[in-house]
Amino acid sequence: MGRNSIKKIARPPRHSSGPTIVYLENEDDLFDLIERTENPLILILEGVQDPHNLGACLRTASGAGVTAVLAPVKGACGITPTVRDISCGGADDVPFLRIKNIGQLLRKFQDRGIQLIGTSDKGKASLYNVNFDQPTAVILGSEGWGMRKVTGDHCDHLISLPMAGTVDCLNVSVSAGVILYEAVRQRL
Amino acid sequence: MGRNSIKKIARPPRHSSGPTIVYLENEDDLFDLIERTENPLILILEGVQDPHNLGACLRTASGAGVTAVLAPVKGACGITPTVRDISCGGADDVPFLRIKNIGQLLRKFQDRGIQLIGTSDKGKASLYNVNFDQPTAVILGSEGWGMRKVTGDHCDHLISLPMAGTVDCLNVSVSAGVILYEAVRQRL
Repeated sequence: MGRNSIKKIARPPRHSSGPTIVYLENEDDLFDLIERTENPLILILEGVQDPHNLGACLRTASGAGVTAVLAPVKGACGITPTVRDISCGGADDVPFLRIKNIGQLLRKFQDRGIQLIGTSDKGKASLYNVNFDQPTAVILGSEGWGMRKVTGDHCDHLISLPMAGTVDCLNVSVSAGVILYEAVRQRL
Repeated sequence: MGRNSIKKIARPPRHSSGPTIVYLENEDDLFDLIERTENPLILILEGVQDPHNLGACLRTASGAGVTAVLAPVKGACGITPTVRDISCGGADDVPFLRIKNIGQLLRKFQDRGIQLIGTSDKGKASLYNVNFDQPTAVILGSEGWGMRKVTGDHCDHLISLPMAGTVDCLNVSVSAGVILYEAVRQRL
């Protein structure tokens, strides 16, 4: 197992006899998982560097039934003991993979009909007008700089959350929660 | 100004000539604010003790246009420099008040027709079936123990968020985000 992979113990299907052990070791494993998943929902964290934020994102991703959480190899936090602790089990529940070339991956997603939903302060689309009831990857940028422009150019929709007050944007794990649970709501 | 109050500099109405300074010093101020607010949305944090969580909740509350954030005097975190820092301006944007007797306050809310939405693992109602387009107070419990039973007894609805994976519940600030932004969605 390389540094980019993480052993994952998936929860067993209800009423099954025991846990299934699943590894996500590389992109082939990822696409294999995606193909086996009905209506996949993927979370891409383009540059989350704070272990507390990554942990909270994994916890939320588990709650929302996310297929996999992806992060780049460079400039992003990986799974550390702090991340695992903060995730309250999410780090062992949701497949996580670090990706060398996010741009290339996004193109592969588009080739497979997975819509790309980016988040940006400049996003014109409303979260609530996006149809999440289809294969979807949600992309969140880094805590400090948001999403890179080159990543935004790949996206089918750039959304921003309505911000009523003087605060510019939400914490990345709260943004993830709001967006992923909007997908949950639409898929109920 | 007592220890339970916090000076609040409200954002100016758009196109107004300057900021309005608003203080929430006691419950009278709170009810005055509520009466002046169309369709108030209140967040009650019954026992959030981690300054990072309170800060993230205030940041989220600002984004969702929450009327006021309330917390008990005992057993909950107040505004500290860390809270203010983490809130990214939310602590100075959203009125915050610490309350001596939460139970009494909840009864006053009910007398004024404000519906009480509690969150609990045992909640039977779905978040997505609650009508948030009316005066509402959302109550979240502490990080460790959730909401007190006595508080739950006051609530009109006890809701729980759908949790697809093995993780039991979301981080309190993420829960706040998901619930408050469902209210935002319904009020658009």
